[in-house]
Amino acid sequence: MTFQTVARAFPVSSISPVSRCVSFCVRRFCEKNPTKLRVSEALLGAEVGEDVRVQGWVRSYRPQKNNLFLHVNDGSSLKSLQVVAPAGISDPLLTFGCAVEVKGILKKSPHSKQPVELEAKQIQVIGECNPVDFPFKIKERHSLEYIRQFPHLRCRTNAFSSLLRIRSEATAAIHSYFKSNGFLQIHTPTITSNDCEGAGELFQVEPPGTTFAEEGSFFSVPVYLTVSGQLHLEVMSGAFSRVYTFGPTFRAENSQSRRHLAEFFMVEAEISFTESIEDLTKVMEDLFRSVTESVLDHCEEDVDLFHKHVAPGHRDTVDDALKKTRFPVITYTEAIDVLKRSSEHFTFPTDWGCDLMTEHEKYLVKHCGNIPVFVTDYPYDLKPFYARDNQDHPKRTAAAVDLLVPGVGELCGGSLREERLSLLRSRLQECGLEENYSWYLDLRRFGSVPHGGFGLGFERYLQCILGVDNIKDVIPFPRFSHSCLL
Amino acid sequence: MTFQTVARAFPVSSISPVSRCVSFCVRRFCEKNPTKLRVSEALLGAEVGEDVRVQGWVRSYRPQKNNLFLHVNDGSSLKSLQVVAPAGISDPLLTFGCAVEVKGILKKSPHSKQPVELEAKQIQVIGECNPVDFPFKIKERHSLEYIRQFPHLRCRTNAFSSLLRIRSEATAAIHSYFKSNGFLQIHTPTITSNDCEGAGELFQVEPPGTTFAEEGSFFSVPVYLTVSGQLHLEVMSGAFSRVYTFGPTFRAENSQSRRHLAEFFMVEAEISFTESIEDLTKVMEDLFRSVTESVLDHCEEDVDLFHKHVAPGHRDTVDDALKKTRFPVITYTEAIDVLKRSSEHFTFPTDWGCDLMTEHEKYLVKHCGNIPVFVTDYPYDLKPFYARDNQDHPKRTAAAVDLLVPGVGELCGGSLREERLSLLRSRLQECGLEENYSWYLDLRRFGSVPHGGFGLGFERYLQCILGVDNIKDVIPFPRFSHSCLL
Repeated sequence: MTFQTVARAFPVSSISPVSRCVSFCVRRFCEKNPTKLRVSEALLGAEVGEDVRVQGWVRSYRPQKNNLFLHVNDGSSLKSLQVVAPAGISDPLLTFGCAVEVKGILKKSPHSKQPVELEAKQIQVIGECNPVDFPFKIKERHSLEYIRQFPHLRCRTNAFSSLLRIRSEATAAIHSYFKSNGFLQIHTPTITSNDCEGAGELFQVEPPGTTFAEEGSFFSVPVYLTVSGQLHLEVMSGAFSRVYTFGPTFRAENSQSRRHLAEFFMVEAEISFTESIEDLTKVMEDLFRSVTESVLDHCEEDVDLFHKHVAPGHRDTVDDALKKTRFPVITYTEAIDVLKRSSEHFTFPTDWGCDLMTEHEKYLVKHCGNIPVFVTDYPYDLKPFYARDNQDHPKRTAAAVDLLVPGVGELCGGSLREERLSLLRSRLQECGLEENYSWYLDLRRFGSVPHGGFGLGFERYLQCILGVDNIKDVIPFPRFSHSCLL
Repeated sequence: MTFQTVARAFPVSSISPVSRCVSFCVRRFCEKNPTKLRVSEALLGAEVGEDVRVQGWVRSYRPQKNNLFLHVNDGSSLKSLQVVAPAGISDPLLTFGCAVEVKGILKKSPHSKQPVELEAKQIQVIGECNPVDFPFKIKERHSLEYIRQFPHLRCRTNAFSSLLRIRSEATAAIHSYFKSNGFLQIHTPTITSNDCEGAGELFQVEPPGTTFAEEGSFFSVPVYLTVSGQLHLEVMSGAFSRVYTFGPTFRAENSQSRRHLAEFFMVEAEISFTESIEDLTKVMEDLFRSVTESVLDHCEEDVDLFHKHVAPGHRDTVDDALKKTRFPVITYTEAIDVLKRSSEHFTFPTDWGCDLMTEHEKYLVKHCGNIPVFVTDYPYDLKPFYARDNQDHPKRTAAAVDLLVPGVGELCGGSLREERLSLLRSRLQECGLEENYSWYLDLRRFGSVPHGGFGLGFERYLQCILGVDNIKDVIPFPRFSHSCLL
């Protein structure tokens, strides 16, 4: 058997070869180009016995006495394809992290660890990877903190590529849930001239070199990055009975917390002709359940990686949530009673009228059996102008609801919206906002209907089902104060 | 038969009634609440003979001698449900544009115009709509220009609600195409510190009151709204062989054109292990075909509205494109020859090395039979630093490709990317960008593979298949210079 080094052999007609491409011919392999398979396709084993070709990156490299074993991964699954080649191949370019094309025969594997393996006839290094400079090392398990330093490379680790597959699947499941339930997807805008929704600190937008106060600014008015698509969805609620949006939202909060980002993704839905807050909690719960079941179903190995190595035992928490027929519902007033009666020492006050803080939310979740719990009917004065007045007393509340979940606290927030023109106008007048929101009042002037909606923080959702402690580890390119890499 | 006015009768337990809700009881109707149907469900006719309840907005109001005819629409389809009630109902609140709940018996319609109609037992006005103030008038066909003035209300017109249904369906079809072809969806960031991709004018982002030059700015570095997710997708191309993104992108171009927006949606895909530019054109064409077929299939009536009333005859153009087995491919050099030989008078020069302008693109499309056409291998100097050098001469070109389409001109732009470290480094040095893009060079240092990708302007796609002349009419909330309404 001879080993032939085929320099400049990259089998691409219109692409000129690159000098670092070197191939190892195990035996002469002059047949026409064999079928190209993705790793996930090869692992299914339908092509056992056939000549195939697989492209990917080397995730492990293990020379033994008679054979060399490689694991090749192309991102199509967590599992890599085992490649077996005769020992003796020792070209320095064939390293952990390099890109290869392997041609050979797909065989049933003699070992139970994998269903198939690829008996290599030719291994070609397409792109080298200097193991000294490459920040990830073979056989080392790097922490999420460590890989976070390399936002341009961390997708090449098992953990982060699993996260990205789960994120993609969860995204698809969200769209699928809404589509099959008759919701129309609306692309709400990122740039908005609404400046006072009360949802947090804003980012302002202008071409560089422009003073924001200038009359001649780009949009003629000050504009901001959206903090929520809700008001724009409410526009649509005057013509469609179910709408949703799913996209980036922004907060200029100077926070380094494990739960906050300056740019994060939010799912928001708005439902017309609501009869009570249960019209919202039902959709929130169904969405959570449907998406989680879909992710567990379609990303079993990827989710297992998190539940085994990142948050051991977390799977039970997820299963407990799914087992519950209906998530418990308590009012804010009941929640305050629970907090006041508890022996826990809280940093923040638990008096009626105070906002629930993360410490309170986490306590309430534990109190209810460590499962998701809805808290409804918050103090009217805590909620933004659009929340519907319950017109109760002596403790005046709004028809608002939060979904609190294990590990994370607040996952969703929603409310029925004030659809009654006179009440909404009074509230806007009190807040000094009537002029800016005349268009919003128009929605109540012309064919107003009872409606409501909610937002779900997508990154918090991923933290919740995977048990990931830091929100920066569930988004491809995290943005937060003092950090915007790439 | 008596007519009973049931004020404060909105049948909602936890929602207190609103005084403007008035209902008309045609006959006593005390049975338990009948099944709630969406208009699209009612039109299917499965519940003929049953008591049902439908909620929506009145799109037409036609009192006749014996009967009153209403059309009620809830956005679930272009078609409204015809409601028939005894004549004599003349409450001033029951007007064009008001919101109603109708209870009654679903019947087979005696007229061929609609399959079913709802014989009303009770019609309740949920939200009134003063016809004097409401900017849309019954039976008037308002122009797209007119309704554009009312971004908060235009979804209540037939044309714009059709557009939104088509947009939602096209979005779903795009996700579906990529998912079923093994592409992973990546949420590329909106805020980025990349400032020089050469794709156009940038918007800068900061919390209000901050000077951009300040050391202590929010992100510590100047940040911008993304002009493309490409570079972030290329990060992922080092671990996944097929990725895509679909989200908002931004240009601070001071343009009032019918083809440009400051915020628009872009579909971008990146494919690893490419062998030639055909790996890109195949995906671009398949995507166009698959999404268009899905839209024509699922939104037949909505699309017909555009092809009948907005762009008569445009359907033939769309069908011609779909009929073509493969879209023609010409090189830039061939395109220049065609332009030079033509007798057309162009405003801009057509010399080799000049960029193709919209007038040229539209001419080339016509020249090829008014179907989509790919133009490949543009002058190297016209393309950004990442485009792959074809290393040809004497006319040096890059492996770039645009898809030009009828009516619109450029719909997609893409290229193979320079994956060869030494060539890319030289180019970045020439442009003075090496320091800022050291992370991008890293992608070529560690397991680089031949790859390429493209972007498709989603609004232009909608213009192209619907024949809509102005891009502001295919996006829910258009943003352009001097305009950011809502």
